[in-house]
Amino acid sequence: MGSMFKELKRECYEANMQLNALGLVIYTFGNVSAVAREAGVFAIKPSGVPYDDLKAEDMVILDYDNTIVEGTMRPSSDTKTHAYLYKNWDDIGGIAHTHATYSVAWAQAQRDIPIFGTTHADHLTADIPCAPPMKDELIQGNYEHNTGIQILDCFRERNLSYSEVEMVLIGNHGPFAWGKNAAKAVYNSKVLEAIAEMAYLTLQINPKAPRLKDALIKKHYERKHGKDAYYGQ
Amino acid sequence: MGSMFKELKRECYEANMQLNALGLVIYTFGNVSAVAREAGVFAIKPSGVPYDDLKAEDMVILDYDNTIVEGTMRPSSDTKTHAYLYKNWDDIGGIAHTHATYSVAWAQAQRDIPIFGTTHADHLTADIPCAPPMKDELIQGNYEHNTGIQILDCFRERNLSYSEVEMVLIGNHGPFAWGKNAAKAVYNSKVLEAIAEMAYLTLQINPKAPRLKDALIKKHYERKHGKDAYYGQ
Amino acid sequence: MGSMFKELKRECYEANMQLNALGLVIYTFGNVSAVAREAGVFAIKPSGVPYDDLKAEDMVILDYDNTIVEGTMRPSSDTKTHAYLYKNWDDIGGIAHTHATYSVAWAQAQRDIPIFGTTHADHLTADIPCAPPMKDELIQGNYEHNTGIQILDCFRERNLSYSEVEMVLIGNHGPFAWGKNAAKAVYNSKVLEAIAEMAYLTLQINPKAPRLKDALIKKHYERKHGKDAYYGQ
Amino acid sequence: MGSMFKELKRECYEANMQLNALGLVIYTFGNVSAVAREAGVFAIKPSGVPYDDLKAEDMVILDYDNTIVEGTMRPSSDTKTHAYLYKNWDDIGGIAHTHATYSVAWAQAQRDIPIFGTTHADHLTADIPCAPPMKDELIQGNYEHNTGIQILDCFRERNLSYSEVEMVLIGNHGPFAWGKNAAKAVYNSKVLEAIAEMAYLTLQINPKAPRLKDALIKKHYERKHGKDAYYGQ
Repeated sequence: MGSMFKELKRECYEANMQLNALGLVIYTFGNVSAVAREAGVFAIKPSGVPYDDLKAEDMVILDYDNTIVEGTMRPSSDTKTHAYLYKNWDDIGGIAHTHATYSVAWAQAQRDIPIFGTTHADHLTADIPCAPPMKDELIQGNYEHNTGIQILDCFRERNLSYSEVEMVLIGNHGPFAWGKNAAKAVYNSKVLEAIAEMAYLTLQINPKAPRLKDALIKKHYERKHGKDAYYGQ
Repeated sequence: MGSMFKELKRECYEANMQLNALGLVIYTFGNVSAVAREAGVFAIKPSGVPYDDLKAEDMVILDYDNTIVEGTMRPSSDTKTHAYLYKNWDDIGGIAHTHATYSVAWAQAQRDIPIFGTTHADHLTADIPCAPPMKDELIQGNYEHNTGIQILDCFRERNLSYSEVEMVLIGNHGPFAWGKNAAKAVYNSKVLEAIAEMAYLTLQINPKAPRLKDALIKKHYERKHGKDAYYGQ
Repeated sequence: MGSMFKELKRECYEANMQLNALGLVIYTFGNVSAVAREAGVFAIKPSGVPYDDLKAEDMVILDYDNTIVEGTMRPSSDTKTHAYLYKNWDDIGGIAHTHATYSVAWAQAQRDIPIFGTTHADHLTADIPCAPPMKDELIQGNYEHNTGIQILDCFRERNLSYSEVEMVLIGNHGPFAWGKNAAKAVYNSKVLEAIAEMAYLTLQINPKAPRLKDALIKKHYERKHGKDAYYGQ
Repeated sequence: MGSMFKELKRECYEANMQLNALGLVIYTFGNVSAVAREAGVFAIKPSGVPYDDLKAEDMVILDYDNTIVEGTMRPSSDTKTHAYLYKNWDDIGGIAHTHATYSVAWAQAQRDIPIFGTTHADHLTADIPCAPPMKDELIQGNYEHNTGIQILDCFRERNLSYSEVEMVLIGNHGPFAWGKNAAKAVYNSKVLEAIAEMAYLTLQINPKAPRLKDALIKKHYERKHGKDAYYGQ
């Protein structure tokens, strides 16, 4: 008997394999999920399975309250963070989490990534936020669920829109990125890593490098998101 | 019915694929064009097409005033910058634009790349110029066209020759490089990235590293461009 | 006549090849061993043989006092360090030594690698120790044997457990890592190199980056080692 | 009719291709030569030929006074430096020159590479010398020949032996390495690049990192060169 979620599992599987092909993960240091909004479920990578052994049918299907709907393997230990984001952010279709080198370095440094150039501005026009490390009482509680709360708190406090800013750093941990589907979430993870490396080098060359000027931020925002959007290299 | 510009499209296509093969771009973060001077047109990569899907026949043909002469796809959003350079610099045959990591880092740091050694001097004997960020009124206007103006202003102000200095950094943005044809423009983009990385590391090791001494600059210039040129490793 | 240790040699051979495939060594700058506890012997890479020429049957079999039990080639010059660790640490099944770039850089800097984030905490919850350079009289003596003593001294002085902390840096030299088998020792070498790179970048971005807070260290330790362990990405 | 120097050309060709395979050069930024002492000639890469197009029969044969003995192509523009070294240093069999990234960075920084660890000490027990930039009157003269003089002057002033120290940095230019044959010269170029990267990172992590202590330098020297040499990983 086939799965009801064959296509969803395939989308999720392919995005996970792409994470690996793009050099964003070693071993099992990452995970991608994909959501089926009409069914109210998402697919996510099983826990601890190396990419070489991964198969599409291994993907685990859960609802937004972390109940397993289909699958015999244990879902990724970050599953509750994914579930919380799907439950609260209606418009996202996929989520990716990595321990990519430069993204993690900024997260460990507990620094937002300043917007230094147009590579950044072509994708988002805010600094990439680094959520401060979790409060002790939340760590001792439902840790991975609370990571979701940590992300939403960060976006609320800074008045950021999750549809304009599709990525975040968790202080001391690493990046989460999302998008309209799982492939876009992986794309955003790769773009974040590239921006993180460029920003690191920029500050090494010029510790006083200025942020991108407002006129350029506005121009790039409108070039992509405005009513006369025309961007594409 | 064949295209009148089959060969031009192929030159442009192959140079774009080379950009990708050399590790100078991820996704669609770059573009190369090639000009046919006798016909007064150039070919450029279409907008937003991933390298894996790109075909030679997709290249868009335009004149120097940005009128599409042949092609059904939208040309790269940087097209007007290419057109402006072709219109004003008679002797260039190809242009490449990338968001390569170290080149972008220097552009974001808003610093010229000092000439520190013979790797640099074998290709050009000036510091690699970083054009200052565009004035606000130009940003709000015809942005990509004005990027072309920004480049020419920079060369005029510094009294640089575009045939000796075949590369520039746009402050906050990234590099443009050119040459006698599209392949040479890609070559110069790769050389620029290598020089940018070496110069970055040089300053990390010795923040007071001196520029190359004048006698060596002169020697390398003449070894390549002088009447008794003999250079080649 | 076949070897008594065919399987042991194969485990050792494959782990050595993996070291190379993971980019942790150039030329012969590393070695992995695997132990057979019931027989009281271990297999190790022969000295100076390039990875391309290595064969499983080349692995040398020795007891914990460095007597060759089987094999015609000279064992790795680091053999006595491996032997000493097997003799003193009953529970380890494999050991890997590399000159991987970032691990060596921290060893040469004579600095412990601070625990900055969860990538580190997912594997161990102490700083990665850097054993101070050997005392002169030990260097002049049985050098490689004494490197083993140097490692045990370091763990005793800091009250570290070799089953929780499966890696060490030898000051001025480089990393050793171990685990339940040779493959796990190689895995730990790769994880160490990733942590070493991230920690380096973290300090470049923020020289005052704080260590991971205690609540997070405790959480990650228990997530993996506690009685309700559930970790796996 | 075959060449008298078929084997010499093949040795030289393969070493040049190895330079490329090891990631030490882009385009034509490097060259290797191999000497036949009994015939008093050496083979070297022709000038400006990309590695993909290179063939063994293209290698140019010259004597130590730069007279072409066999070959129709122009020899590398660095040929005179190779010839000068062969003429003056009787025991070397091959020479390699690259513009490898980290080696060039130290050369441009005009800094010797300090001996920080055993990776370095396993190969040589002195700091890797950086010859100061050439005097102006020598630059204006027979430049590539004088680069050879520059290297020998550096070794004489510092009382270094070319058989113990098989590598040098030319200030503002880049590395030369040599050895008993062309393959060993390439090996030394790769080792130099690895040491250069590790030393760079070491100083970034700890700007006051101490040089390797004398007892360790002595131990490593004797382990490899002493009468009881036994080194090999």
